[in-house]
Amino acid sequence: MLYPSLVTIVGALVNGNVNFLNIAHVGILNAAAPHLISLGMNKTHHTNIGIREHKTFSVNILSQDQMAAMDYVGLVSGGKTDKSAVFETYFGELKTAPLIVNCPLSMECRLYDTYELKTHDVFIGEIVATYADEVVLTDGKVDLAKVKPLLFDMSSLKYWTLGQAVGSCWNAGKQYKKKE
Amino acid sequence: MLYPSLVTIVGALVNGNVNFLNIAHVGILNAAAPHLISLGMNKTHHTNIGIREHKTFSVNILSQDQMAAMDYVGLVSGGKTDKSAVFETYFGELKTAPLIVNCPLSMECRLYDTYELKTHDVFIGEIVATYADEVVLTDGKVDLAKVKPLLFDMSSLKYWTLGQAVGSCWNAGKQYKKKE
Repeated sequence: MLYPSLVTIVGALVNGNVNFLNIAHVGILNAAAPHLISLGMNKTHHTNIGIREHKTFSVNILSQDQMAAMDYVGLVSGGKTDKSAVFETYFGELKTAPLIVNCPLSMECRLYDTYELKTHDVFIGEIVATYADEVVLTDGKVDLAKVKPLLFDMSSLKYWTLGQAVGSCWNAGKQYKKKE
Repeated sequence: MLYPSLVTIVGALVNGNVNFLNIAHVGILNAAAPHLISLGMNKTHHTNIGIREHKTFSVNILSQDQMAAMDYVGLVSGGKTDKSAVFETYFGELKTAPLIVNCPLSMECRLYDTYELKTHDVFIGEIVATYADEVVLTDGKVDLAKVKPLLFDMSSLKYWTLGQAVGSCWNAGKQYKKKE
């Protein structure tokens, strides 16, 4: 019940074809170099084959306006349906991790490790490059109010939007201390 | 840049004392039994000592109304400041994972594994029990609109609220298919 979690579109090259799927069981492992993130992906997913083969993948954060396409790539398997045209794509530094054109925020990842579970491959990726669309920046920083990411919740099986910024981290608690 | 991420309050018993801290670098590893989640925790944190000692911890999802207390336990270290009275606590099945009274949603975790990084302990916990406050349930299910969780963003260093439910998972994409 660690929800909501961020909806990401994971891209990989599978048997020479660009493929994408919707993964919200993601995680941030650290806040230091190498910057590592995790994707908990059921072993039945077609995309896993490409990640194992090329040891690269992309993680794309799309806007809530693209919910239909985001959900669609989670509805159909790349093993049966060619999803390569759902998004316009390009390749970056790693050459084998398909990135989405005009995506608010994309990361290219090198497979750092695979944490194997019985049912899931937990792919641990090192972020080697991050691409932000200029339109989501404010003063040179990614502005989530402009990204408008989608969030996932297993309890309601709904997608949720992000609300408002309501306080400053490592600051809002100073108010608590004063109350003591 | 895998933000926003969910703000959790992690509880552990450290040298016999209840301690809590604020961790938003969390992840969901799978969607199958055993249900595993990850906490990426800098090795400098006092709480890590307790998790290593008892091999148990709690993960508590508090409401945005408790932002000051949530931020406060991330501002001060349990090594210097006794944080045991910030929240009213109780123990559940595991006996050594302090849980927060009247918390919207709490999970008791058994330490399943530790994925060691140079700077961080990534604690992988198996969820052995989940406690939901009745007031956050709708038709017996956790309702995030009632939980009102806080989200974290490293770019703005702000806490964000959750917005609205805007679509159904494994459903919203059917609309995309029709458009093809």
